[in-house]
Amino acid sequence: MKNLHKHNFGAGPCILPEEVLDNAAEAVKNWRPTGLSILEISHRSAAFEEVVKETEKLVRDLLQVPHNYSILFLQGGASLQFCMVAFNFLHNSGKDAVYLDAGYFGQKAIKEALFFGPVNVAASSRGAGYTHIPKEYSISADAAYFHCTSNNTIEGTEMFRFPETEVPVICDMSSDIFSRPIDISQFDLIYAGAQKNTGPAGMTLVIAKNDLLDSVKHPLPSMLDYRVYRDNGSMYNTPPVFAIYAAMLNLQWLKNKGGLKTISLENRAKAQLLYDEIDLNPLFYGAAERYDRSLMNVTFRMHDPGREADFLAFAEQNGMVGIKGYRTVGGFRASLYNALPYESVRELVNCMKVYAEKYHRPAILV
Amino acid sequence: MKNLHKHNFGAGPCILPEEVLDNAAEAVKNWRPTGLSILEISHRSAAFEEVVKETEKLVRDLLQVPHNYSILFLQGGASLQFCMVAFNFLHNSGKDAVYLDAGYFGQKAIKEALFFGPVNVAASSRGAGYTHIPKEYSISADAAYFHCTSNNTIEGTEMFRFPETEVPVICDMSSDIFSRPIDISQFDLIYAGAQKNTGPAGMTLVIAKNDLLDSVKHPLPSMLDYRVYRDNGSMYNTPPVFAIYAAMLNLQWLKNKGGLKTISLENRAKAQLLYDEIDLNPLFYGAAERYDRSLMNVTFRMHDPGREADFLAFAEQNGMVGIKGYRTVGGFRASLYNALPYESVRELVNCMKVYAEKYHRPAILV
Repeated sequence: MKNLHKHNFGAGPCILPEEVLDNAAEAVKNWRPTGLSILEISHRSAAFEEVVKETEKLVRDLLQVPHNYSILFLQGGASLQFCMVAFNFLHNSGKDAVYLDAGYFGQKAIKEALFFGPVNVAASSRGAGYTHIPKEYSISADAAYFHCTSNNTIEGTEMFRFPETEVPVICDMSSDIFSRPIDISQFDLIYAGAQKNTGPAGMTLVIAKNDLLDSVKHPLPSMLDYRVYRDNGSMYNTPPVFAIYAAMLNLQWLKNKGGLKTISLENRAKAQLLYDEIDLNPLFYGAAERYDRSLMNVTFRMHDPGREADFLAFAEQNGMVGIKGYRTVGGFRASLYNALPYESVRELVNCMKVYAEKYHRPAILV
Repeated sequence: MKNLHKHNFGAGPCILPEEVLDNAAEAVKNWRPTGLSILEISHRSAAFEEVVKETEKLVRDLLQVPHNYSILFLQGGASLQFCMVAFNFLHNSGKDAVYLDAGYFGQKAIKEALFFGPVNVAASSRGAGYTHIPKEYSISADAAYFHCTSNNTIEGTEMFRFPETEVPVICDMSSDIFSRPIDISQFDLIYAGAQKNTGPAGMTLVIAKNDLLDSVKHPLPSMLDYRVYRDNGSMYNTPPVFAIYAAMLNLQWLKNKGGLKTISLENRAKAQLLYDEIDLNPLFYGAAERYDRSLMNVTFRMHDPGREADFLAFAEQNGMVGIKGYRTVGGFRASLYNALPYESVRELVNCMKVYAEKYHRPAILV
């Protein structure tokens, strides 16, 4: 049993549902279909092949992935995807790739892409401290692809609309996939490190249009070639067995809960509760522009930065975990991933209210 | 509690010690230092940084790794190492790499290396079905490096001596690392997929001489650059948290057991028990040449191949798991990794004895 007095707002690896943790722990001891631990079974066993199929099916059903897309399980997180995307689709293409520069991870993606070919930055909000998503830009019709980050985990901004373009759209969806319904057909390739709403760290999900994969004509190292994963059912080599199994449990939990529509409503309610407090509380303000606010990662600050360390200590004493902002942004960040209960947000909001009351008490009474 | 009637001879992911599984399961429910699950803690938390340090220290102590070597934790298994080794040390070197072709995985390593530069095969046992390790060969003094596989998991051969050469020696030690003491100073880089004696699948161990890493002068994608892992304490991006934690538990178990000298004696005793039966039992014979027999993966066949399916069924009925040989080798393979009890080998040997008695019963009495 987890400590019930902790409210885990960590940005990832992040909170997972209690029943997922219980079932994962049970499988580490004894995974019933095999009589062995999930950690010591062969990835070639029929039982585990079933896990991979079921996880793929859950991804397909939850996100309504069209049949002309493949679902792949890899390792290395979004960071390895920064490299693989460009190695597969920019390298030797004779074209430029177009990147939207809207946050820390988008910039890292650009850095890795430059190893393989020229990059055009369609637009950047860097000068504004990445507090918003750039919206006015065009994408050249002869670009290799357009790359964006749907949710900026560090800065707390999120894209709710994606550009319409003739070139392939590639999206890093690490921190908001499975948080709300999305139209997969808007994208040609989506990738996501698992350690937010998908499952624990150690697995990377890729959803790719087969046409895009088949358009690659140059040879690639096997482990960096999406087609190798597709053609081998994500089992070209030993996959991260436990991470895939835990992701399956987590996606089953999501499905049983009602899927993306249900979770989307819950996520909206949690975000609204917290943003309302940020806007109403005299001590705090939101770090991101209002119209681009992330529903997953709520970034906020105090008008008096000198109070931030004190409020952090106060919140931590009251069981809040992982609300310290990223060092480049400062302030606070509360991540409201799927498994975070509404109750946890209420507790955080309560901390903010109590703290504000304390702070606003007339000095004479202190 | 695991099923005690199963004897897990799987080639990897493989058997792990009961206490490691129990402690890993407990941490999935509630990891005491944090009051959270190990699956939902930040990899930047002080508690997890301690895990990485402790795992590194265990590797260093158990293998007596000299101070001028770095210990790195990556993802992607040996298969990604096939690519990284050549990308780091062959690409742009103007030199050839020398590979020993002694098995299925060595050949895969060659295939990936060819993407980055020319490869000389020092010697090959392919024509002999990889039933032995080639021994007579020379390594050009101007090679980029020499690459070998210390244990051929599929074919059941193992290298107990490594060539002396002036060029860097790089070794895939996936399936025999931590099975016996080795002299790390013989090597410049060692890599190993975790899912044998290190821990569960999902983590890759690299032990690299700093001089070799520092000799690389060309730019590399971050996630394929060993120096990026070294310079960021294996935390350039989110590492496979649970796989590292479980590896730590497993290496602690090994240390508490007495370390590599102790386990080496146990492993020798298990292998001898099984090889003796293979040599004495009239129905079976060893698949690999006697002087190159692996202590980790024992490959054997039946003189009458038509009996193999029947023996397999008989052994499985008696609780043997994972003894079917790899499809390219056929017959049987019993993997005797560290956590496999002597008792399990005795049970397998017993199956072989009982089966032989049954088979040898005079036909008239059947």
